[in-house]
Amino acid sequence: MTKTPDSVVRSYLDQHQAAFLADLADWLRIPSVSADPDRAQDVRRSAEWLAAKLRETGFPVAEVWETDGLPAVFAEWPSGEPGAPTVLVYGHHDVQPAAKEDGWDTEPFEPVTVGDRLYARGAADDKGQVFFHTLGLRAHLAATGRTAPAVNLKLLVEGEEESGSPNFGALLRREADRLAADAVFVSDTGMWNETTPTVCTGMRGITDCQVDLYGPDSDIHSGSFGGAVPNPATVAAELAAALHDAERRVDIPGFYDDVIELTERERELFARLPFDEEQWLRVAKSHGTQGEAGYSTLERIWARPTAEVNGVWGGYTGPGRKTIVPAEAHLKLSFRLVAGQRVEKIQQLVREWIEARIPAGVRSEIVFKGASRPCLTPLDHPALQSTVRAMGRAFGQEILFTREGGSGPAADLAEVLGAPVLFLGISVPSDGWHSINEKVEIGLLRKGVEASAYLWGDLAEHFRPAAADAN
Amino acid sequence: MTKTPDSVVRSYLDQHQAAFLADLADWLRIPSVSADPDRAQDVRRSAEWLAAKLRETGFPVAEVWETDGLPAVFAEWPSGEPGAPTVLVYGHHDVQPAAKEDGWDTEPFEPVTVGDRLYARGAADDKGQVFFHTLGLRAHLAATGRTAPAVNLKLLVEGEEESGSPNFGALLRREADRLAADAVFVSDTGMWNETTPTVCTGMRGITDCQVDLYGPDSDIHSGSFGGAVPNPATVAAELAAALHDAERRVDIPGFYDDVIELTERERELFARLPFDEEQWLRVAKSHGTQGEAGYSTLERIWARPTAEVNGVWGGYTGPGRKTIVPAEAHLKLSFRLVAGQRVEKIQQLVREWIEARIPAGVRSEIVFKGASRPCLTPLDHPALQSTVRAMGRAFGQEILFTREGGSGPAADLAEVLGAPVLFLGISVPSDGWHSINEKVEIGLLRKGVEASAYLWGDLAEHFRPAAADAN
Repeated sequence: MTKTPDSVVRSYLDQHQAAFLADLADWLRIPSVSADPDRAQDVRRSAEWLAAKLRETGFPVAEVWETDGLPAVFAEWPSGEPGAPTVLVYGHHDVQPAAKEDGWDTEPFEPVTVGDRLYARGAADDKGQVFFHTLGLRAHLAATGRTAPAVNLKLLVEGEEESGSPNFGALLRREADRLAADAVFVSDTGMWNETTPTVCTGMRGITDCQVDLYGPDSDIHSGSFGGAVPNPATVAAELAAALHDAERRVDIPGFYDDVIELTERERELFARLPFDEEQWLRVAKSHGTQGEAGYSTLERIWARPTAEVNGVWGGYTGPGRKTIVPAEAHLKLSFRLVAGQRVEKIQQLVREWIEARIPAGVRSEIVFKGASRPCLTPLDHPALQSTVRAMGRAFGQEILFTREGGSGPAADLAEVLGAPVLFLGISVPSDGWHSINEKVEIGLLRKGVEASAYLWGDLAEHFRPAAADAN
Repeated sequence: MTKTPDSVVRSYLDQHQAAFLADLADWLRIPSVSADPDRAQDVRRSAEWLAAKLRETGFPVAEVWETDGLPAVFAEWPSGEPGAPTVLVYGHHDVQPAAKEDGWDTEPFEPVTVGDRLYARGAADDKGQVFFHTLGLRAHLAATGRTAPAVNLKLLVEGEEESGSPNFGALLRREADRLAADAVFVSDTGMWNETTPTVCTGMRGITDCQVDLYGPDSDIHSGSFGGAVPNPATVAAELAAALHDAERRVDIPGFYDDVIELTERERELFARLPFDEEQWLRVAKSHGTQGEAGYSTLERIWARPTAEVNGVWGGYTGPGRKTIVPAEAHLKLSFRLVAGQRVEKIQQLVREWIEARIPAGVRSEIVFKGASRPCLTPLDHPALQSTVRAMGRAFGQEILFTREGGSGPAADLAEVLGAPVLFLGISVPSDGWHSINEKVEIGLLRKGVEASAYLWGDLAEHFRPAAADAN
């Protein structure tokens, strides 16, 4: 067999896989549950464990970064090559809560291998997917004979992702100089399924608000007054109902103005994914589909902005009847955003649209709670093409594309750092994120290591950002 | 001064008013709070007190009627005149809860006279208005020289009105034969105000339902699924919003089909009431009016059917955000009905209308909770004209007309007995029903006595129902 660079990587992985899995298991034994104050020391221990392991891997810099909450880990390994791109890998070392009593078959913080699966809390989300970069990087060096990576490599592994990243934005702004990068790689996502390797090209953003509607000063008698005064519960309903037109498009003027539309190429590629609507409905626990006319289910959840009523309440909600015009009613609305849409503009459009629809006699308060930006990397972006090539070499298969319908801090990271976001992940829907019996497929974990081993060289060759920093 | 029949009545009242007020005060001292189980013996004592007082007044029959709850009082005094109409007076002897700590200036069950006002719980609602018939009847006999009333007079005074009359329907059906009447007079309402005596000609009915909407089997992630599955909170909002068209008419096909429209005469008479919208809004605690196009505020609350959202809930209602597609959402809807509309038909229309609007993937349950029929007595009805003449003689003023926007057992009483409902009341909005410092205006109470004294003779002369029972 010819000794291709890829076969060198594979041989290297064959030699080191057992030790890699043993190390990962050590890390998984640390119950770094960020949501549990009693586990704060475990989260710190997890950060210190990772920083030490990254130094052992060869990173000349690997630090525990303090925040106002739980610590993150930062590591850096300059390429030494003039003009090499700088890449920041993002992940997290904290995990969701887990206890055997929740219904796990095994102890969640005692990793167990069954066949080709490694069971433990954090196996897929996200320790396994952070950790594959360590072996990938060593394979990259071994296969290329380099003493430093082909790109300027940085890692940022936060410790509060499962708690909503409350201190992440502040950390990014504080350390923006050291985090500067030409591209951000998020290793905290997955693929379509075990047999369909994919690369995610973007996430939806989100902005949400609470709308408080005040009518009469107290609940009033619907016999004495009903039919002659405005009812804030009706106003709430009319607002929520008016969010969509008959085609289930969001009916707020200007809402779609800046949307980057799906290209024909993306729609063709999405359509090639083996999508089974029956199965998707079972996962969704829904009994039917409904959405914007002219788009498939996948397009609706990945590439189209939405308006959703997350909660509504007002008036009498107890048993029996109470015939009142309620004093107040409330809506929690959220809007998933796609690339092109700006959070601030959408908030403004929503606010103006709501305010224009409040009848005389009803007072409204609109408070926007939080927001995450959308992100999207075009199919022809050179860093995305490098990712696809690296994944293709690892899997020996055509790589298709997905997007992520949810929202996360990744896009904010891109925004603060002014860099495109890419996704490199090998988790699959059956991995049980946030659920019992979380696992990672060891075969896929190895594909992640391998893709990581190929990625940095490919990027160094093909991704030469104009503003590349040569540090 | 000529000794007219009316001056005889007034002299009689002058002589007996003090004793009448002293008796009423005795009754008001009995805290017949039907909602308080600890007061059950007081409600019984109130019933026994009234039955004894009615026997003392001259009623040959005055009985405490047991129910599955608290007792009612029935009394009967046949006219002895062949062909005399039979009239049933309805009122209640139970009262709303009251305690000095609620903010009363005086002890609620220790009647106090201040100027021309008698303060006590039940002074207006409804003991004062039941009791004025005792003196009225004696004045009627004194002025006419009769030994029995000119009509066959029956009284039914229930003991659970303030608790929703849970056993009243069963009592009516059980005693339908003894309650048979040609007209029902409800003495449990009021007039426009102190200087504008009015007669109420009808009440709105009501039917209400709860609509339960079920979408996904649990709350699901709005990022992963939002925009592609139906949201039951949105369905609830769309139902509630679709209840009204842009003119604020109820937009359910057939809803208005059987409505007895206001006559031009009624509209003219309503328009002559001294209605002050600013003041009405203060009482309503509302900050604006809104209602069916083409109708005044009074017409909207008295003579037009409505659809009202009494409550709505679904999804996340706590602090912060939870970006979900909710599993379920719920609506409490009520419909005020006007004469002509039938409860059963409206329930059927509402049910069909809702069911036709539920999208695939959402399941609905619709449960109608309760209902009261509407009632209306036309302006030219002879019993209504007798009422107006009796009130006119008492007040020496033109009598205008109102209706009642609320709903109550009166219309059901009319339905079970197959008799028209009329209203004879002298309470005014300032009397503080269900509120602190309830009072009755002694001057108006006397007008009620006087109207009662004139009514039976006028009815005997002018109201000769075809099916009159001569017992």
